[in-house]
Amino acid sequence: MTVQDIQSFVTGDWLAPDSAARDIRDAVTGDVIARAGRAQVDASAMIDHAVSVGAPALRAMTFHDRARMLKALALYLQERKQLLYDLSFSTGATQKDHLIDVDGGIGTMLVIASKGRREMPDGHVYLDGGLEQLSRKGSFVGQHVCTPLQGVAVHINAFNFPVWGMLEKLAPTLLAGVPAIVKPATTTCYVTEACVRLMVDSGILPNGTIQLVTGGLGDLLNHLGAQDVVSFTGSADTAYALRSAPNLLRNSVRFVAEQDSLNASILGPDAVPGTPEFDLFVKEVHREMTTKAGQKCTAIRRIIAPQAQVDAVIAALSERLRDTVIGDPRDPATRMGALVSDGQRRDVLAKCASLGSEAERVFGDPDAFAVHGADASKGAFLPPMLYHCADPDAASHVHDTEAFGPVATIMGYRDLSHAIALVNRGQGSLVASVVTNDPEVAREVVMGAGAFHGRLYFNNRDSMAEATGHGSPLPHMVHGGPGRAGGGEELGGVRGVMHYMQRTAVQGSPDVIAAVTGEWVPGASTSQGPAHPFQRNFDEVQIGETLHTSEREVTSEDIEHFAEFTGDTFYAHMDEDAAKRNPFFPGRVAHGYLLLSFAAGLFVDPDEGPVLANTGLDTLRFQKPVSAGDRIKVQLTVKKKTKRTADYGEVRWHVILRNQDDAPVAEYELLTMNAYT
Amino acid sequence: MTVQDIQSFVTGDWLAPDSAARDIRDAVTGDVIARAGRAQVDASAMIDHAVSVGAPALRAMTFHDRARMLKALALYLQERKQLLYDLSFSTGATQKDHLIDVDGGIGTMLVIASKGRREMPDGHVYLDGGLEQLSRKGSFVGQHVCTPLQGVAVHINAFNFPVWGMLEKLAPTLLAGVPAIVKPATTTCYVTEACVRLMVDSGILPNGTIQLVTGGLGDLLNHLGAQDVVSFTGSADTAYALRSAPNLLRNSVRFVAEQDSLNASILGPDAVPGTPEFDLFVKEVHREMTTKAGQKCTAIRRIIAPQAQVDAVIAALSERLRDTVIGDPRDPATRMGALVSDGQRRDVLAKCASLGSEAERVFGDPDAFAVHGADASKGAFLPPMLYHCADPDAASHVHDTEAFGPVATIMGYRDLSHAIALVNRGQGSLVASVVTNDPEVAREVVMGAGAFHGRLYFNNRDSMAEATGHGSPLPHMVHGGPGRAGGGEELGGVRGVMHYMQRTAVQGSPDVIAAVTGEWVPGASTSQGPAHPFQRNFDEVQIGETLHTSEREVTSEDIEHFAEFTGDTFYAHMDEDAAKRNPFFPGRVAHGYLLLSFAAGLFVDPDEGPVLANTGLDTLRFQKPVSAGDRIKVQLTVKKKTKRTADYGEVRWHVILRNQDDAPVAEYELLTMNAYT
Repeated sequence: MTVQDIQSFVTGDWLAPDSAARDIRDAVTGDVIARAGRAQVDASAMIDHAVSVGAPALRAMTFHDRARMLKALALYLQERKQLLYDLSFSTGATQKDHLIDVDGGIGTMLVIASKGRREMPDGHVYLDGGLEQLSRKGSFVGQHVCTPLQGVAVHINAFNFPVWGMLEKLAPTLLAGVPAIVKPATTTCYVTEACVRLMVDSGILPNGTIQLVTGGLGDLLNHLGAQDVVSFTGSADTAYALRSAPNLLRNSVRFVAEQDSLNASILGPDAVPGTPEFDLFVKEVHREMTTKAGQKCTAIRRIIAPQAQVDAVIAALSERLRDTVIGDPRDPATRMGALVSDGQRRDVLAKCASLGSEAERVFGDPDAFAVHGADASKGAFLPPMLYHCADPDAASHVHDTEAFGPVATIMGYRDLSHAIALVNRGQGSLVASVVTNDPEVAREVVMGAGAFHGRLYFNNRDSMAEATGHGSPLPHMVHGGPGRAGGGEELGGVRGVMHYMQRTAVQGSPDVIAAVTGEWVPGASTSQGPAHPFQRNFDEVQIGETLHTSEREVTSEDIEHFAEFTGDTFYAHMDEDAAKRNPFFPGRVAHGYLLLSFAAGLFVDPDEGPVLANTGLDTLRFQKPVSAGDRIKVQLTVKKKTKRTADYGEVRWHVILRNQDDAPVAEYELLTMNAYT
Repeated sequence: MTVQDIQSFVTGDWLAPDSAARDIRDAVTGDVIARAGRAQVDASAMIDHAVSVGAPALRAMTFHDRARMLKALALYLQERKQLLYDLSFSTGATQKDHLIDVDGGIGTMLVIASKGRREMPDGHVYLDGGLEQLSRKGSFVGQHVCTPLQGVAVHINAFNFPVWGMLEKLAPTLLAGVPAIVKPATTTCYVTEACVRLMVDSGILPNGTIQLVTGGLGDLLNHLGAQDVVSFTGSADTAYALRSAPNLLRNSVRFVAEQDSLNASILGPDAVPGTPEFDLFVKEVHREMTTKAGQKCTAIRRIIAPQAQVDAVIAALSERLRDTVIGDPRDPATRMGALVSDGQRRDVLAKCASLGSEAERVFGDPDAFAVHGADASKGAFLPPMLYHCADPDAASHVHDTEAFGPVATIMGYRDLSHAIALVNRGQGSLVASVVTNDPEVAREVVMGAGAFHGRLYFNNRDSMAEATGHGSPLPHMVHGGPGRAGGGEELGGVRGVMHYMQRTAVQGSPDVIAAVTGEWVPGASTSQGPAHPFQRNFDEVQIGETLHTSEREVTSEDIEHFAEFTGDTFYAHMDEDAAKRNPFFPGRVAHGYLLLSFAAGLFVDPDEGPVLANTGLDTLRFQKPVSAGDRIKVQLTVKKKTKRTADYGEVRWHVILRNQDDAPVAEYELLTMNAYT
């Protein structure tokens, strides 16, 4: 077998490691398969390359451009993932584990790309929240906007997910418009290197947007400033050492950490043996203990069950654990492969010794277990091990010692508040789960334990067919947790992109806000086009282009007729006395839908043209009742344009209905699809 | 004059300072007016009091309950503010300065209270973002929720705003449901103490929700954990010392900092002498230099003007500065009072010496200026001082040395990109402003400088009558900035409340999500009430209560008639061939508003009852066209209820229109006001 030198990709070049490179061994065979170490890397040059070459290229693109780039990149990797599978077996991972790492990473990138297209604008500024009215007359308003940081993101990743760990950070970073320097954990960096090589070779990423440092980071952190971000995944000790760096603290450098976590799963009080929930619980716990040989930051470390069910859970879980085939991850029959390295194996055993001082091992013996198709003396194999802690209130290690392997501790609870107290003893975790068919239990857990957990996962008979698993961070939901879990957040759709952007409160006149955001806002200047706006195609019609319609009187016959025609004979429209008793109305008033319908009658241009369809309507508010004899007119203004397909884009119109006294009676936003030509 | 012992309010008792108490002097007369020092305070007892007495009381309240509490508290202070004015003169502040501190603080609390009522639910869980579809069939969904941290907020405040500085942090903290320990700066703690005394005496706050430590915090920070928050305002050096505390770093304790900031104001390239913008710029800079004698974290320290206008700005600004009456702050003729202390005065002069090495003083002489109505040798007076830096590219102190007094440096720029480079040399600031009448300049500054600033303030002839000032943090907008400014955020409406809450990604079945959030979500169980839901009052009608209507056919006559009646003869409804050419439609289709109107006809109960008015409609999406001959029916479900006044509350209904094949054709949310009885 050839021993591969793992390279770094720095300022556009692939560099070999220096002479101090360290051997990396196959987790299964113990053979040396690669060497990695620090290349001759100049931290300042790397940062400068990212900031002056990569960053401007990314910032020149819109959010949609970058989302399309991510989608293309993900699809490119998708076609070449077999190469990553092939390498990943050497980390001890099974094909099922690869699905989490490789396919999970690619899938995450696809979801982030899709959210970028759907939830972010096709522009350079992301709007955070709505317009703030800061003045009585509306000449001074506020809008929070987010723009890309102008520095570099340094991603320091853990060994367990060499692909997902990189891509789940990279996708939001690049979508934000920020270049990245990736530092994978050395033990599995050969998989990450292969993935980076694919991405570089794809030619999809602008130069300078990604660099890779295998081996140590050197003094890179000392060169970072407030435009940079460090995103770390790994142990609490390393996180502490890194975040204590004076330069980071001095310059308020953003530091996102995802570290140790004593995740727990609670069996609900209702989920007694014989219920679908009991079986589901055992199945989920088993999966979390054995997937990736338990080397998952979200794995269940603490099993919290009603005191009366502890024995039943131990029995059912042991049965499943007994059937778990351990061995060569390349063999499809294998359910659990090896740990990543002998060092990791020894670390887990040391932590088990800690747990053993407070809990009894009720399943699994590291000195006696079967390994199939591999040499147990050479590979980093361990059996799943289950501990039982009889007095979890008095214990401490079971709540604070993370054995990062196929190890969990079961403990009993007296009642739900005891379960909540126990789950919170982790002092902050990435995820806790509850298997219960009682929504009230879920509500109580959220109220009592929400503050301690980044994610709370509930499962039961209704959701089990589609639930995504206790241990799966999803790109849609935040991943991270308070306290021991590091106090950071990643993912969560656009939320994860914000970590690489600066939120700025922009204040100014409506015209200033419109220029900054690219969207018309009330009070900003309007213009009149050379034709009815419905006859102007997507490209022609301009932001701020406005149509003022003529007036139409609303008669009592109109109201009567509308009621009869639609069947909406609500008393406020039909019964003068009843309407007068109502605190909102002076007497009978026109239907809100009558006003909307008449408004459309006033502003629509009937002829075939670029407006293809009215697709929706947002934030309609009726501001003033309209009585028979009132006259209404409409102001229709182009607020925003967003390209959607190759043929048409969405136009968002601001609509305001006024009466004969120019008082607003209704205001809303209308969506149409408009053809480009 | 009596010398007052400033007390601490700890675990429900007022405690006198210990023997090591330090003298506090009147800024104007130099007389000793108070003594403050650390009381015999037990940090663990304070935290325990907050967590076990204050926090549960706050968490038992809903967001609306707490918002009403804040409003009552603000109104209580409003009536007693003269007491705070009277004391505040001794800090050197004028009556105008008091308006910023005292009225500004009360106003901030009122806005936060109002946002709590309008933008947060009348419940215990705040929903962050919308429902996430995590499964194909919808049996497993996600929702981010925020719940109060279960610890205590420690507020370490600066001397310059003894009231606002406390209230702007307290309002979001209490609204979140978290108790606070307030540590004011010693120099002005007598004002803060008086304000806390008012709040405690009001009886409005539950026991344990507020404690006050005058003097040092002792080892309090060593007792904090991940459920606690430290929010600091002050110098970068103190911030660095505090945030480096190993206990805070180890436990990922949230640390919000607002520290030194070299805020800048840019005179736009268009704002030449003779324009309203030029005069406005000079006026704003003058105000920022002299208000609170320049002791404002948001004050303008760097004046960035087109090279060609530097002399004109110096001349105009000097003229205004010359007319600035300095003296006894109690005298209404005084425009600028004293600095807070002689120590502060000396610190400013030391910083001026630094600036003087790179810039020339062009206005103001600390050794020769007039002081009116006070003894200049006893009070901490300084004149406004303007420096001119001829080579700002080569300079460093002018960009990194904050003289926290009435001091600013003017520098010239060549073009807008140079101005942006200069403004960013502050390496992160709370606010930068631009006075320009060119929206394109605003856009360029946001793109180039947004990442370096927490707030960008634009002003011009359109907004000047209502603009709130470069230096005024508003409760609606975030206050804070990256890098040198501390990397923190405060305020910004609900955003500021989030600093005291944990965001948790909740995943589960729709019924679980509904139970957790108190809102019906699609897929969750529905119920049928004993009567039409329109005949059930606010309290009677239940979340999830659902009406299924009968079907109604939409005929071609209906479409023809609706078009004629409303005037909406859009081609997609009228012209079969044109509609067919449209990518969205199979041929002529019914108007969207016809469907809405018919839907109302189907679900409305006409009789007078508790439903008072339809007030609005949100997120309407048309999902499938309806052709003549199709039949529609409606499912109307109670999604959410929110009390609004003493007489009625808002009901949010989820509405879905389906056709004869049960395919959704339109979906939206409807708002009504419903009487309680």
